Amino acid sequence: MADLFQNNPSQRERDIDRFQSGGWQRVADTLAVEEPLEIRIDHDHGGQRETLPLTITMRTPGDDFALAAGFLFGEGILSRRADITGIDYATDLVSEPDQQNTVVVSLRDGLEVNLEGQRRNFAVTSACGVCGKASLAALAMDGCAPVRSGVTVSATKLTAMPAALRDAQRGFQATGGVHAAAAFRPDGTLVALGEDVGRHNAFDKLVGGQFLAGNAEGLEETIALLSGRASYELLQKALRARIPIVAAVGAPSSLAAEIAQNFGITLVGFLKPGSFNVYAGRERICD
Amino acid sequence: MADLFQNNPSQRERDIDRFQSGGWQRVADTLAVEEPLEIRIDHDHGGQRETLPLTITMRTPGDDFALAAGFLFGEGILSRRADITGIDYATDLVSEPDQQNTVVVSLRDGLEVNLEGQRRNFAVTSACGVCGKASLAALAMDGCAPVRSGVTVSATKLTAMPAALRDAQRGFQATGGVHAAAAFRPDGTLVALGEDVGRHNAFDKLVGGQFLAGNAEGLEETIALLSGRASYELLQKALRARIPIVAAVGAPSSLAAEIAQNFGITLVGFLKPGSFNVYAGRERICD
Repeated sequence: MADLFQNNPSQRERDIDRFQSGGWQRVADTLAVEEPLEIRIDHDHGGQRETLPLTITMRTPGDDFALAAGFLFGEGILSRRADITGIDYATDLVSEPDQQNTVVVSLRDGLEVNLEGQRRNFAVTSACGVCGKASLAALAMDGCAPVRSGVTVSATKLTAMPAALRDAQRGFQATGGVHAAAAFRPDGTLVALGEDVGRHNAFDKLVGGQFLAGNAEGLEETIALLSGRASYELLQKALRARIPIVAAVGAPSSLAAEIAQNFGITLVGFLKPGSFNVYAGRERICD
Repeated sequence: MADLFQNNPSQRERDIDRFQSGGWQRVADTLAVEEPLEIRIDHDHGGQRETLPLTITMRTPGDDFALAAGFLFGEGILSRRADITGIDYATDLVSEPDQQNTVVVSLRDGLEVNLEGQRRNFAVTSACGVCGKASLAALAMDGCAPVRSGVTVSATKLTAMPAALRDAQRGFQATGGVHAAAAFRPDGTLVALGEDVGRHNAFDKLVGGQFLAGNAEGLEETIALLSGRASYELLQKALRARIPIVAAVGAPSSLAAEIAQNFGITLVGFLKPGSFNVYAGRERICD
């Protein structure tokens, strides 16, 4: 029952542009890998074996079997070790990446699984929002054209934005526990701000507020600043809003960098006073 | 279209026990509120109006209409402002908290919404895991008994755990972008560690690894240490694993503190060398 796919690493190297002390350097950076994992159960459905996809989670490869078992235990589908008769990657999938990203947990005969009840309960929680598509390929097929905006921002204006965000964040100052997503104009003016315990909700509040005010298209001329890390899903939401520059105070995931690269979004990470990393679209940052 | 329920605040005060400089103080702390928001659409389904619940997200109250609109825009259900003809809290619900936590977005006649396709795509993403139940009431009804463990930990051992976790975290050191969930014995020994871009996945990896090894019950004698914040869902997962003490390096949400209080879990937040806050279950911390 050891994980077999050792060729699915949890970290990935990427050449990036680093801005520091007023100058640029080309350096290698290590990113946490983010990829979809589909969890399926093979179970006894009224005397017949049935395989069902239960959920997809965006995860870092590694300990995939533990993740699948822990998820099913947490959901109350498993109670004891003997409930599992086997656990393995999918063997029916042709494409190797799909095999590595699909785990099938076989449950013992006679174990009652109320899937209808479970599925209804698979709600979306604070830290996530909703993942529309599970792969880059699906995203591309969905007809998302690359962002071609000519918007640029200076390194000086960019590095001043986190302090401006912090000043505007009422919630964080009091609780230390909420994320923010903000839109800035290239001149450093704050356009709008969303705050929430979930970073995806904060982003939805930012975009939705502009949408309700009839200003959604104005976001196409802005820099989105994220108080935390940049994940696949936040980049997907930025792409949908046609935001040309996404800057995160924290680290980006591998998939966030790939989406940015493939869809023409400038992605900045580890944004601090005086320094930041550029993972894609360096041409929109002027010195 | 302004949010009406001003009595659903985004922050909540709570009296907590603060350990600092070797002593205890009773102080008031401000927590970010975390509560479920159900997003429903009222739409034209083949010539008939139909109201459908689309998702539940754990969010901080405030800007709820923006959140709902931004979510639907991000999912591609809405394209332009005119697609929305109305947006309001649910009026058909008897209980006031439920009203405040349910938003109905009315879509214009003739707007095609491929709900089947959307629903299939409502996958669970890195930062979330899966929310089994949407309210404290549902959780209580699910038959979860309070944790009654007599496990205790000293303040000295507790405050040393974040450094031990950081030393053990291979992923974070390289990428700065992964969360960890670890189990420690009260004597400070590290039992196991899960790492992932998603904090809920990290917790599932921790519990699932012990479950697969037949050691799940051993977790009932441990302290779970979280590298980030403590949300509703992580407390729910800890309760399922019967873990008596949960300590977070970051802030807890209001709902995390309530679950801890109601289900006998000791909840520590802002754990640093020499100081921490106790939100529930102070009796398990010995000086």
